[in-house]
Amino acid sequence: MVKIKINNTLARKITIMNVHYSDYLQLDKILNAQEMECEKHGVNAHDEMLFIIIHQAYELWFKQILFEIDSIIEIMNKPEINDNGPDLQMAVHRLGRIGTILKVLVHQIDILETMTPMDFLDFRDYLRPASGFQSWQFKITEAKLGLKFEGRHGQEYYTSQLRPEQVAIIKEVESSPSVIELLNTWLERMPFFSDELLWNNYTKLSHSSNEIHPFWNDYRHVYQNSLTDGEKHNLKGFDDIFINGGVEGFRFSSSAARSAMFIILYRDYPLLNLPFQFLNNLLEIDEQLSTWRFRHVNMVHRMIGSRVGTGGSTGKDYLMGALMKHYIFKDISTLTSFLVERRKLPKLSKELETVLGFKNS
Amino acid sequence: MVKIKINNTLARKITIMNVHYSDYLQLDKILNAQEMECEKHGVNAHDEMLFIIIHQAYELWFKQILFEIDSIIEIMNKPEINDNGPDLQMAVHRLGRIGTILKVLVHQIDILETMTPMDFLDFRDYLRPASGFQSWQFKITEAKLGLKFEGRHGQEYYTSQLRPEQVAIIKEVESSPSVIELLNTWLERMPFFSDELLWNNYTKLSHSSNEIHPFWNDYRHVYQNSLTDGEKHNLKGFDDIFINGGVEGFRFSSSAARSAMFIILYRDYPLLNLPFQFLNNLLEIDEQLSTWRFRHVNMVHRMIGSRVGTGGSTGKDYLMGALMKHYIFKDISTLTSFLVERRKLPKLSKELETVLGFKNS
Amino acid sequence: MVKIKINNTLARKITIMNVHYSDYLQLDKILNAQEMECEKHGVNAHDEMLFIIIHQAYELWFKQILFEIDSIIEIMNKPEINDNGPDLQMAVHRLGRIGTILKVLVHQIDILETMTPMDFLDFRDYLRPASGFQSWQFKITEAKLGLKFEGRHGQEYYTSQLRPEQVAIIKEVESSPSVIELLNTWLERMPFFSDELLWNNYTKLSHSSNEIHPFWNDYRHVYQNSLTDGEKHNLKGFDDIFINGGVEGFRFSSSAARSAMFIILYRDYPLLNLPFQFLNNLLEIDEQLSTWRFRHVNMVHRMIGSRVGTGGSTGKDYLMGALMKHYIFKDISTLTSFLVERRKLPKLSKELETVLGFKNS
Amino acid sequence: MVKIKINNTLARKITIMNVHYSDYLQLDKILNAQEMECEKHGVNAHDEMLFIIIHQAYELWFKQILFEIDSIIEIMNKPEINDNGPDLQMAVHRLGRIGTILKVLVHQIDILETMTPMDFLDFRDYLRPASGFQSWQFKITEAKLGLKFEGRHGQEYYTSQLRPEQVAIIKEVESSPSVIELLNTWLERMPFFSDELLWNNYTKLSHSSNEIHPFWNDYRHVYQNSLTDGEKHNLKGFDDIFINGGVEGFRFSSSAARSAMFIILYRDYPLLNLPFQFLNNLLEIDEQLSTWRFRHVNMVHRMIGSRVGTGGSTGKDYLMGALMKHYIFKDISTLTSFLVERRKLPKLSKELETVLGFKNS
Repeated sequence: MVKIKINNTLARKITIMNVHYSDYLQLDKILNAQEMECEKHGVNAHDEMLFIIIHQAYELWFKQILFEIDSIIEIMNKPEINDNGPDLQMAVHRLGRIGTILKVLVHQIDILETMTPMDFLDFRDYLRPASGFQSWQFKITEAKLGLKFEGRHGQEYYTSQLRPEQVAIIKEVESSPSVIELLNTWLERMPFFSDELLWNNYTKLSHSSNEIHPFWNDYRHVYQNSLTDGEKHNLKGFDDIFINGGVEGFRFSSSAARSAMFIILYRDYPLLNLPFQFLNNLLEIDEQLSTWRFRHVNMVHRMIGSRVGTGGSTGKDYLMGALMKHYIFKDISTLTSFLVERRKLPKLSKELETVLGFKNS
Repeated sequence: MVKIKINNTLARKITIMNVHYSDYLQLDKILNAQEMECEKHGVNAHDEMLFIIIHQAYELWFKQILFEIDSIIEIMNKPEINDNGPDLQMAVHRLGRIGTILKVLVHQIDILETMTPMDFLDFRDYLRPASGFQSWQFKITEAKLGLKFEGRHGQEYYTSQLRPEQVAIIKEVESSPSVIELLNTWLERMPFFSDELLWNNYTKLSHSSNEIHPFWNDYRHVYQNSLTDGEKHNLKGFDDIFINGGVEGFRFSSSAARSAMFIILYRDYPLLNLPFQFLNNLLEIDEQLSTWRFRHVNMVHRMIGSRVGTGGSTGKDYLMGALMKHYIFKDISTLTSFLVERRKLPKLSKELETVLGFKNS
Repeated sequence: MVKIKINNTLARKITIMNVHYSDYLQLDKILNAQEMECEKHGVNAHDEMLFIIIHQAYELWFKQILFEIDSIIEIMNKPEINDNGPDLQMAVHRLGRIGTILKVLVHQIDILETMTPMDFLDFRDYLRPASGFQSWQFKITEAKLGLKFEGRHGQEYYTSQLRPEQVAIIKEVESSPSVIELLNTWLERMPFFSDELLWNNYTKLSHSSNEIHPFWNDYRHVYQNSLTDGEKHNLKGFDDIFINGGVEGFRFSSSAARSAMFIILYRDYPLLNLPFQFLNNLLEIDEQLSTWRFRHVNMVHRMIGSRVGTGGSTGKDYLMGALMKHYIFKDISTLTSFLVERRKLPKLSKELETVLGFKNS
Repeated sequence: MVKIKINNTLARKITIMNVHYSDYLQLDKILNAQEMECEKHGVNAHDEMLFIIIHQAYELWFKQILFEIDSIIEIMNKPEINDNGPDLQMAVHRLGRIGTILKVLVHQIDILETMTPMDFLDFRDYLRPASGFQSWQFKITEAKLGLKFEGRHGQEYYTSQLRPEQVAIIKEVESSPSVIELLNTWLERMPFFSDELLWNNYTKLSHSSNEIHPFWNDYRHVYQNSLTDGEKHNLKGFDDIFINGGVEGFRFSSSAARSAMFIILYRDYPLLNLPFQFLNNLLEIDEQLSTWRFRHVNMVHRMIGSRVGTGGSTGKDYLMGALMKHYIFKDISTLTSFLVERRKLPKLSKELETVLGFKNS
């Protein structure tokens, strides 16, 4: 049997003008980055290679996800997103790609599960105290999307696992605008229509005070009527979120919440379609992240039972706590509680419909 | 926005006694191996990063697959596989793992498909003549499993794409025993029972010449009766394969073919269960490999239409030709043509059943 | 062990005013529609139940796919699709759903593959001549999307398998406008801008005869320059498709082909984003359909080898022929051969950009 | 556009001797079992068809899963499972199939998620009080695997949703032996070797009282030494489970727990391989079931937010409670906490190894 030794000499031997696959992908680095701890201890543990490679594959994909998030933040950070240019479309497309990557990362757990608990025990002790909690790329991904320190489960434990430099980087990221914050700003700017525009073009149905826009006053009536007895308390939630400036822990301002709501309700209009896909893709990312976390919980439980993890955590409970707390875009999914049936929606005027349409139609 | 620069200094700054996740995974190498050609040409092509990272992820997994294949070849290369030890179970388990990895690699194509043809065009020209055909790890994987040079589609093209050193490695691999060859040897050794044992313990049903074992003579009768008019020619195939030493291009000897057939027919007996899983896992690998090739064909077609690939191939046609020809374990699936209904199988004697069982039962 | 007998009496016993899950889903029909042929012959073949149920699950999903296709055809059949209403968005969304369903149908083959060839043989003979080729819902799906009789592989075989009434239905479907034809009409109507509009707002780069629009003349120049020596013949293809009215077997008129091309090239503009998703979703459907066909080929080969199928077909070869010929939307993927790099695209004038934008921006 | 009316007349028109696909699959029943509530109310809600069909597809697959479980229970209910016959292999194979089906059912949620909350609202009110909680096939599946009434989350709510006849069926199932109970019995019978056999062939390492078998005494020592300070309390758990007859809520007797443990520890020996796959496949089923439940929680949250479900439940919280409590085979995964490294395992004597092997080796 020929075992392949990969070395720099082989890969670089011939100086070529043209691009070669092996050089382009820097395979000498990629394929020479696996050193098994078990070998250093003179112990044979076949499955350690799998353990190394799957984590490296995860980190490669985290790099890609960060690359996409950075580009999305760059777009959203512009003073004004160009509604008639490629900006929004690009952001939506790349969020969709992140969702697709995450689906593969969830699937990838199948591979790790071919390692049985006994196979893991063969090398597990040599890894201490290394732990997946030390993946700072993953922490940064969460932070850039919108998970701040104060929203984290087990805050002390979480920083204790990282190196000072890594904590510093994450702190810096946490103090920079995240996707959820930039989304709030973008929604507040009312990307496509102003409160004034809506005001002027909306024929109100119900009497409304000065304080609340007639559209939202009407909508509030419809919503109120849709509530069953057991749901009546939801009306206070409605007022807090859409009128009175928000509730504790909810990260959208009332103005932003109204825009998001309008987008979800009237997504059929061309102007609102990409914005709707934007919100939907964020929910998809949250769902994939949480599914990944959940399968990870299951796997850890199957692998180490109720014993303490290599990083010293109590395993399943910690992870389950994190899962429940770390839905990054829960502010968007919360809005679902305030929908009404399409056929009961306030009807938009012809003028408003025109505004939501294309120039040339 | 904070963009993360990953550098060796950061990763190595603190000398630690204990294992740290970042060092253990050599993330300084893994995460610093992405250089975009488009940047060298002062061109912006966002999707090149995805292109690099997905190929690196593929190569990481190819390394893992090779690691598993090497361990399987090592087991099968032993003068005698220990039927009562962990050998066979380990080989079966690892073949199963390769199948699981390949499923993820098939799924991974979904990610590349988020790159549209226009996005690919942004950097495609800078890659010439690099090409996926230059992945020597993939070629070696095929060769170790059993795909020899003479079985390859487009032989000249295939070597023209590789560096001399890489061709040399593949040649060496091709001259070493592959999984399919070792399987043939193992089947010939009749791992669990000898011809003699079968002979002594089998009560023949039909008259049989000296040349053919009474069991196979009986089986041949049953098979012959199961053929419809349009299938009568299959009997000659049966004789060629199981009695007369094989047919052109078929890589099992008649003796090995009979063993494989016996395993498939009587897989319900405990002794034959792991061997059956062995054969089945090889078919699963073939199926996943071919599905990967097929999705690759589709993707190439969607990406570059009928234009010439970066490596100079005519794309779809070449790939489709390779797909059809590169079923590595077609020798096993061929056997399916010669099955008969379970209820018509020659009945094994009590003695033989005992032999196929566990000591203590 | 309690085996459950499902009967109408149980399900209907209590007359209720309210909707009950079992009644709503008509589970008395759904769960009492499995009769195993093997039992009628007094033979035990455990896996026949799986065989029945998986095919019923497929047929349920085909019904859903047809339901979606019908609604899409209804939208596209309107004299004028409302660009500022929900029409296009709905069609795109439902095409996306069909793609999602098809992915599950591809995955579902994993389940059938848990049936081994020997398990299939237990009941295979009792099914003759029933065959998956007799699924008229699948044939109608293909026909409604755009696969006509003359485009089918093995035409005689295909009709021989269906009942006269079923053939009649398919014939009627084949003579009604299919998705691909309605797409051609829609593209010809130039949904968002007319030739005139483009003409008036485009600043031509190159000299152009009267016969060809300056935009396309310019584009043709760019395309010509992008071709390598081996690809020069592609220019004739370009002229045939985009200028001279098409080529044999290509189902878009030149006018429709130009619209589709413009959409693909300038998809970043908001107006063209949903149309681009429309085209892309059709390609996705084609890809999933072909992957399904391919996995089906593999499975049939693994299941019956080179023997004749229950419906009398020669199995693998027939299916592979159909696979290669039945890409329904190959007209769209053909366009990929005629793309050029984004940075070389003719620049659109400010006026034209405005036209492709939203009213209120 | 041709809409297809499916009627019995069409399907049955021609009396045929042979089996036809449409009759065999009883497509007249299957494809005529969709009646949309919204139509009865004169309301158009396109997505109700999807809602009906996906639930019917789920119920079809539940029927298949029950069919497999029944066959497995039948095998395990035999006075003695034939270790040298097909029994165990068949049970393992079918458990594997259930896992494969569940994976597709998890994937199927992707399809339902193409229905947006607004699309669901279009018909949601017409369904009250129908609810997925009324799927008695699913309840029976859980019960047959081993989930008893006393182990259920929200017991009162759960029965309130079902019809009296359905509750009666489930009660009967709950009083019949479930897979987990039959597994306990089978493990207690020590399928492959008796305590006596192990006793006679084991060379003890440590001093042992009369009360504990020397093998387990030795193993206990090794385990004790493997515990970190924070894990010392695990030793009491060890004694309770493996020696003192079990702990509250743990469904294996000490004798059964020891057998299961021995199988997991020494799975490499041929005799223990299928039993190991048996245990592993049960864990796989649990994992897929819990993943399904989790994705269901996510979907419900995304669909109805914090509002009350059609069946009157408070949605997410109820479902999450059920998820955490309904791991049916947690008794097996608990054992993982008591593993030690393979290289520290008590060594088996040659005699014992022989006993775990095949007759003819």
